Amino acid sequence: MSDIEFRFRHTMMPVASIDRSAEFYTGLLGMQVVRLRREPERGGRNIAYIGYGDEGTHPVLELIEGTGNHEETWSGHIAIAVSDLPTLVEKLKAANVEFAKPMTKPETGTNTYLAIIVDPDGNQVELNQRKGGIYS
Amino acid sequence: MSDIEFRFRHTMMPVASIDRSAEFYTGLLGMQVVRLRREPERGGRNIAYIGYGDEGTHPVLELIEGTGNHEETWSGHIAIAVSDLPTLVEKLKAANVEFAKPMTKPETGTNTYLAIIVDPDGNQVELNQRKGGIYS
Repeated sequence: MSDIEFRFRHTMMPVASIDRSAEFYTGLLGMQVVRLRREPERGGRNIAYIGYGDEGTHPVLELIEGTGNHEETWSGHIAIAVSDLPTLVEKLKAANVEFAKPMTKPETGTNTYLAIIVDPDGNQVELNQRKGGIYS
Repeated sequence: MSDIEFRFRHTMMPVASIDRSAEFYTGLLGMQVVRLRREPERGGRNIAYIGYGDEGTHPVLELIEGTGNHEETWSGHIAIAVSDLPTLVEKLKAANVEFAKPMTKPETGTNTYLAIIVDPDGNQVELNQRKGGIYS
């Protein structure tokens, strides 16, 4: 593991309205909106990234608005930036770790690779390899 | 708000066994155990703080073992270190923010003040003022 670098990237929290939540966290708890993704026109959800500094160096909250087409219970998760996800995924598979989403190579976006694993308690953990490295 | 400093301190995840989780996150995802609190003899729970660096400068995961005497559903939370919690609490009260736990001055431990508020979606947010400042 010594050659793979990691850092916490975000904690996801489900919210009803990113505008209402952004007002709460920026107005009362000193956060700033560092990135907004308004993607309903592309079939996605509105997502706000808020926190106490740039996403490239500071962990943020990922606020995902609504539950879209999903019927299932929505829950939060943590995300970890990884410097070499293919190597890590081989190690995770060898350890029989469950994957909620197998490693994919997104066609668009800022991730080179992305996977979601399940920890021993069923918590989902997002793993992503950023195109610009773990501090991007 | 300009004179109050903040930083993310931890994300809590409920786990069945801190030993099992620590093995998973340190063995497979490069984390280190930065602090252990084994407190059943004091009526508390076993808690592990794990992550990618010192708690004083890096956010960590707070793994709380079991649900103890609590019957209610257990859910994760985020924690924010605040430089001046009494001043912030006055502002939050003026904004009619709901408190899940009013501000207390713990007799022991590393916090000068601690409070838990509820955000617009019902997510609990722990706020603590550390004796050594937000980077302690």
